[in-house]
Parts: sequence; structure tokens; C-alpha cells
Amino acid sequence: MANLLIGIDLGGTNIKIGCFDTHLKLLKKTSITTDANTGPQAVVERMLAAVGGLVKESGFALSDISAAGIGTPGPADYKAGIIINSPNMPAFKNVPIRQMLSDGLRCPVVFDNDANVACFGEFIAGAGKGVDDMAFFTLGTGIGGGVVSEGKLLRGSGGNAAELGHTIIYPDGRLCNCGQKGCAEAYASASNTAKRATEAIEAGEKSTLKKVLDKYGQITCKDVYDHLKAGDKLAKKITDETAEALAILCINVLHTTEPQRIVFAGGMIAAGDVLLNRIKDYFNEHIWSLKKESVEICFATLGEDAGIIGAAALAMANSKS
Amino acid sequence: MANLLIGIDLGGTNIKIGCFDTHLKLLKKTSITTDANTGPQAVVERMLAAVGGLVKESGFALSDISAAGIGTPGPADYKAGIIINSPNMPAFKNVPIRQMLSDGLRCPVVFDNDANVACFGEFIAGAGKGVDDMAFFTLGTGIGGGVVSEGKLLRGSGGNAAELGHTIIYPDGRLCNCGQKGCAEAYASASNTAKRATEAIEAGEKSTLKKVLDKYGQITCKDVYDHLKAGDKLAKKITDETAEALAILCINVLHTTEPQRIVFAGGMIAAGDVLLNRIKDYFNEHIWSLKKESVEICFATLGEDAGIIGAAALAMANSKS
Repeated sequence: MANLLIGIDLGGTNIKIGCFDTHLKLLKKTSITTDANTGPQAVVERMLAAVGGLVKESGFALSDISAAGIGTPGPADYKAGIIINSPNMPAFKNVPIRQMLSDGLRCPVVFDNDANVACFGEFIAGAGKGVDDMAFFTLGTGIGGGVVSEGKLLRGSGGNAAELGHTIIYPDGRLCNCGQKGCAEAYASASNTAKRATEAIEAGEKSTLKKVLDKYGQITCKDVYDHLKAGDKLAKKITDETAEALAILCINVLHTTEPQRIVFAGGMIAAGDVLLNRIKDYFNEHIWSLKKESVEICFATLGEDAGIIGAAALAMANSKS
Repeated sequence: MANLLIGIDLGGTNIKIGCFDTHLKLLKKTSITTDANTGPQAVVERMLAAVGGLVKESGFALSDISAAGIGTPGPADYKAGIIINSPNMPAFKNVPIRQMLSDGLRCPVVFDNDANVACFGEFIAGAGKGVDDMAFFTLGTGIGGGVVSEGKLLRGSGGNAAELGHTIIYPDGRLCNCGQKGCAEAYASASNTAKRATEAIEAGEKSTLKKVLDKYGQITCKDVYDHLKAGDKLAKKITDETAEALAILCINVLHTTEPQRIVFAGGMIAAGDVLLNRIKDYFNEHIWSLKKESVEICFATLGEDAGIIGAAALAMANSKS
């Protein structure tokens, strides 16, 4: 008669699953490959089998699960519980994922954007502890966003609020994957940071990164930060542009949702203080003097577990409301 | 034993006051001059006297008031209920306005930003009817903002959320009164629309507006729209720049809070469809194709009463929660 909570992070490559007690203590976790091309039915069946195995290994039964949460990349119809058309999982079209899971687990299921879910995880158990209002950016291939306002996720009319990476900071600037021009994501995501370095070298700018490009045919974001630390000037310029774009994002989210803390997550935060301090520098350079130092800017602390923790925390919050 | 609601809109020039029944029906309203230089004590005393007169004229007594709301221009410490330092009312420093009113009226008082209050008024009784999620811009000397999410005002950690006019849309662009560069307000408020026209003429651009400038020493926003309608090319260019800045604001608030409807208010909406249609054009030009037509963009309907209605509505919402 335990009250287990299940948190699921469904990505294009892997599905991470965590089994939690009612204090959000992680009892056991696992990760399986998504193999999205096998189709939604097969993926959900393997997901349910993995949950069953995890619960059993934790010493419980499926009937002990009180609620579950799942996060997927957007856009989706989160209010209706449906993955409509996922760029990372082309075989998933109009999939009623919430209902499928709810039927399989026989419990209420919360379905939300993966960045929202990770944001809520950090809010409850990570870098957001102690505040009521938080903004969150995850810096990976794209830039995901999340906002917590007065302790609750900001969801918007269709569950697609906080798509902060697609706010426009340079109108008519770089073309974003989404089709808009000048999105923050088109400058400051990990992949676009690497892409801007590549473009600069191809345009003839001098950099120690050229050797990497010549040898491997590509530059990663990690390469940029490694060469920055070794003193490369182009890497510094590219990092500064990334940091400035992220600082503008921070200013705009501050003026829109007024968080007490802004948390950055995702692979790119491995760059450490050379990135974080530049974001703070540009924030203080651009912000209204009245608002200087009015918000803490920091890195996430939960790493890859933010998604499963957040999904379980949302499931818990939902069952209490 | 009626349950009267009082709504107050405290501006630098005038104080508007409305007396409402519990269905938010306006029973009577009045407006007195602020005379802010007489100091907060004197202003509040006259405000209380005006409320008393209004209640009496409506056939009730002060003891019939169940709750009141008041809006003032930001920034202020809305959570603490204090006007700290008002640019429009220099004599108001560290004024515990909420407590002063609450003591005088012997009822709970809600205190919020004037744009938030007007936003809530439109949401409850005007252009926001029928939706749960709305964004709001008021176009005057500055650009005020408001956001309603799932039926509630977005307030942020200190009550200063939705300062949308100070989100940055052109980093390192025009200097804003707030000290930041590139705020939307620096381009698209009524006063900055007029200012850009003046600057263009002074820089030698040809326009029928030059005669206005020569004759009156200044150009107003209304002049710009009048000359636009008469076919002036500079007026068209200035209007287009205003509309494009407002469209970027709409896109960014859509990606951040996902409203179903975006409402423009303030003096500048007198320009009518020539402005509204250009905002929609630029919105559709810049937005992610997936999100085209995903939000209604329209004008406010309550005019100058939005503030008193919103303040009374907030007082009512607060007493129910």
C-alpha cells in the first residue's frame, strides 16, 4: 500500500524512468533506448515493461503507483495529452500518450514539455530551492525554457508557455530551425555556438579551432570552451556573443515573469564560470540600473535526473491540487 | 448592508474613483486632480473624502464598503504595499499607500501596478472576456504591460512582472528612459513614435509633418497617424517601425506566457485599423509558421474606465481567494 511516484523523461534517443517515494526520494532509476521508429505502441509497451521491472526491483507492485508524470520535447498538445507531430520521433503522430500511460499504469498521468518538467525538478529539488519564482533555460541542441510563478509552472493556454529559446532578440537576425529570424536559440544554444565558430573559421577568421575543424570535420561547443580556456581569441568572441544573447534572455524574462532566480541547465553549463560570469557581466551591462543584482543567475544542480525528478514532482503536485 | 467595491486609479495628474456593486456594475464614478506635490498625507485625505462623497451619492455608507483596489504606476513594492519612489509623484517616497487606504476605509485593500490593474479590468469586463490567458499592452508615454495566466494576474516575486515595455528587442538600440538600450518602449510608445518622427524630420527627411513641427514646435503621435491617413510617406515608415516593434513584443509574450488573446490599450489605439493591421502583418511575417494565427490581437474596449473596473475586480477576486 505504498504510494509510489513514477517520473519519465521521453527523449528521441533514450527514455529515463525513475521510481520515487512520496518524499520524492529516488528509489531506483533506469534508462532504455527509445527506438522511436518502432512506433508509439511498441515504445509505450517497452516503457510500461521497464516501469514494471523498476517497481518490482524496488520491492513493490504496479498497484502501489499513485501517480506518474512524463515529459517530452515540444511542441505537443499538452492540455489534451497528445504528441501531435514530434520532430525527434517522426513515427509519433497524434499519439494520446497520456491516456496510453494512464491505461497501462492505472493511475493519473501528468504530461508536460521536457524543459518545463526539468525546470520543476530543479525548482523542487535542485537550484530553485528556497524561492517561489524561477526561470529556467536548458542549453543543448536548442534552448528549452521553463518558468515557475508563485510555486506553479507557467503553462499558458495550450501548455506551450516558456518557449523562451524562440523569443526574438535580434529581429531579422540568424535563421532559427523554427523558421523565425533572430531567436535566442539561433545564437546561444550549444549547437549554434559551435556553428557560429565553424562559420567564422570558414569565413577566414584565425583560430586554434581550425585544426579541430580540419581534423574532425566539425567543431563542438565543448571545443569552443576548451580553446577559450587555452586563450583563443575567436573562442572568446563566440563565447561573448553566446553570453550576451543569454543575458538579454535573462533581462527579458526578468521583466516578464520577475523570477528571483534564473537557472541554466544542459550540456553547455559544463563550460563553468567562464560562461556564467560573462552572462552576469552582460546582464549588468544591459539591465536597468534599478534592477541590477535583482536576480540570482546560477547553474542547475540535478544534472540528467532533473527530468525524472520533475516528472514525479509534477505527478505529486497534481494529485494534491 | 450592501457589499460595495471601490476601484481607484491613482495617476500623476488625476485620481479616478469608481463605486461598484458585487456584480462589478459601476454605480458612480468621479475624478479629482492628484496635486501630488501636496504630499501623500494630503492626497490620501482628499482621496478618502472623494470615496466618501461617492459612496454617499450612491445611497450607501462607508461601512458598506467590503473591499477596495488601487493601481499606481510602477515601479513600487507592490507585495509590501509601498510606493517607494515614484517618478510621476516625487513627493511620494516610502508611502505605505495600502495601509493608509485600508485604515481610512476600514476594509482590505489590493495594491497593484496600474497596467496590471487595467489588464485585469479588460480581462474581466472588456476585450479579454471568454479567454483564460491574455496579454495586455498600454501604449502611452511609456508601454505598460499585463499578463493573465489561467485567470490570474502574473505578479512575479515582487509584483513587478509584465514590465513588457522594458523587454529588449533591439540590443544596443535606442536609449530608453529607464536607462536600458533597445527596449520596446524606446520605439513604440506613443511619445517615442512622435519622437522618432521629429528626429527624422530634423535629420532632413521630407514629410508633410514638417509644417506641424514648424508651427507647433512638436509632433504628437496623433499627428503621425493623421498624416499617415493623408498619405505621408514618413508617417508610414514611422508607423511601420512602431508596428514591427509591437509585433516582436507580441511574438515574445506569446512564446513566454502563451496567451489566447493580446489586447492593446492606451491613447495610441485611436489610430485604429491602420495600426492594428500593420501589427498583425508584422506578426505573421516574423512568427514561426506553426504559430501563425495562434493568437487574437485586438484593441481594448473599456477606455479610461479599465483602471477603476480592474481595481474593483481585483479587490473582489482577492476577497474570494
